[in-house]
Amino acid sequence: MPIERIAILGTGLIGASVGLALRSHGYTGSIIGYDPSSSELDAAQSLGAIDSASQDPIRTARESQLILLSGPVFTILEWLDRLVPLLQSGQLVTDVGSVKGALCEHARGTYNLVHTAGFLAGHPMAGKEVSGAANADGDLFTGAAWLFAETPESRGMHPASRTLADEWRSWPEKFGSRVLDLNPARHDVLCAWVSHLPQYLSTALSALLDEEFPTKDEMLPIGGRALREMTRLGASPYSMWRDVAHTNTEAVAASLLALELRLAHLRENLKTPELRDEFERANHFRSSLDPQKK
Amino acid sequence: MPIERIAILGTGLIGASVGLALRSHGYTGSIIGYDPSSSELDAAQSLGAIDSASQDPIRTARESQLILLSGPVFTILEWLDRLVPLLQSGQLVTDVGSVKGALCEHARGTYNLVHTAGFLAGHPMAGKEVSGAANADGDLFTGAAWLFAETPESRGMHPASRTLADEWRSWPEKFGSRVLDLNPARHDVLCAWVSHLPQYLSTALSALLDEEFPTKDEMLPIGGRALREMTRLGASPYSMWRDVAHTNTEAVAASLLALELRLAHLRENLKTPELRDEFERANHFRSSLDPQKK
Repeated sequence: MPIERIAILGTGLIGASVGLALRSHGYTGSIIGYDPSSSELDAAQSLGAIDSASQDPIRTARESQLILLSGPVFTILEWLDRLVPLLQSGQLVTDVGSVKGALCEHARGTYNLVHTAGFLAGHPMAGKEVSGAANADGDLFTGAAWLFAETPESRGMHPASRTLADEWRSWPEKFGSRVLDLNPARHDVLCAWVSHLPQYLSTALSALLDEEFPTKDEMLPIGGRALREMTRLGASPYSMWRDVAHTNTEAVAASLLALELRLAHLRENLKTPELRDEFERANHFRSSLDPQKK
Repeated sequence: MPIERIAILGTGLIGASVGLALRSHGYTGSIIGYDPSSSELDAAQSLGAIDSASQDPIRTARESQLILLSGPVFTILEWLDRLVPLLQSGQLVTDVGSVKGALCEHARGTYNLVHTAGFLAGHPMAGKEVSGAANADGDLFTGAAWLFAETPESRGMHPASRTLADEWRSWPEKFGSRVLDLNPARHDVLCAWVSHLPQYLSTALSALLDEEFPTKDEMLPIGGRALREMTRLGASPYSMWRDVAHTNTEAVAASLLALELRLAHLRENLKTPELRDEFERANHFRSSLDPQKK
């Protein structure tokens, strides 16, 4: 197989998990990691997510066939800019960022040209509310979707890069992920609903409860599974979600507004039969999600 | 110990789970169950949650020292009405309903008199999104709070009922629950925030997604843990939550309105530094909830 050297730029939770998943699913080439945080880099190496830790990400990228960019969206955007003049056709850049439109837009006209590296945008729909290589897990992607956003540009990448792209697309399948293709705009709208909205909602609920209960002594002992579950994502880091808010603003704002209106509708109908309809719609949604349950 | 005969009126998820918990934590007396649904009653008996199934709940209640009312709040209210003229001092009625103010209000002037049965309102903070005895679990209450709402009236119940009440209060401790006391009004406000708001929120989110995606083919494969978790309670039954909406309307509406405003605030600040403050408050809330995690 042509991919024998992979650079992972950003060895936090997702980057290190990809390294672990590659290793545990039979990848035998080398994996070189870089992270601006030396503790993240050390943790990734200790876990075996990377073979070696690079102090020179540019050189590492130039010497690799596949460069995986992992981190907040703006960090990935910056890497795209930095790397494009240094790489060449026959190399492939891919990413695991949460937003695809802004990245594909950014790569247009620079990547995927006859003499430049290929860029194939990707997004594993897996994560945790805690960040960092220490929480990495080689099974994180098993059973999760791994989305690819091919574009007219990526479809026209240099054949030597395409060979790498086709091989890379086979790795998530080996991880046990469901590989799906979406165009970047549709990706961002769908992810606003199924991923970004749940995140911002959990953040808002957690922040509200934090202010409502300045001392937690009375509230904490009472909260059960519902409270823990609905606020779990409240632990998610700002750094990652700031970039999503900035790069998928319109779709996120639309989903938030729709939820505000829905909550108001429910609130105004606490004592009317419309409440039953809302529960029936919600029940229907859940039975679509888990058709095996009654 | 004085409690040797317990009637469980309503052998669904919670009623049957209490029966199982009593049995697995050393209760040696008898447990007689009644449920308007014969299939629920049969399921509870098959599981061993009750010793025998009653077809005559009035007689069963009259012959029991402790009568546990389990079900939606209005069902419990109806049982309180039906039973009060038939019971006497030296008997104790308790419940596991989600709202306490309306029940305690209802019991005032009828229960806890010198010649009438005692009423001690209770509420285990445990449940599942699926109902029914088939989902009952004797460990459901382990690690959860079990709230009691003593009132001036319950504190004045007949000493023979009080003996039963004091013994009953010891059972959740044996189940591994944290037993806490709250007055009924405070109970309802706290539960609006930590239990009822998460429920109605999950219902609204699930209903919204159900309408937003009339066909689920594109959305379902993409959704990950965040989506499943935030909509899990969308499977909850209307029957139970209708009664909460009717009997804790003011506190629930206030918490919903506060969340609507919070979501609007976040939406209006997707690109401002205020988003960082919201994430910091949310992070703080979660570190209060899980102080052991970093």
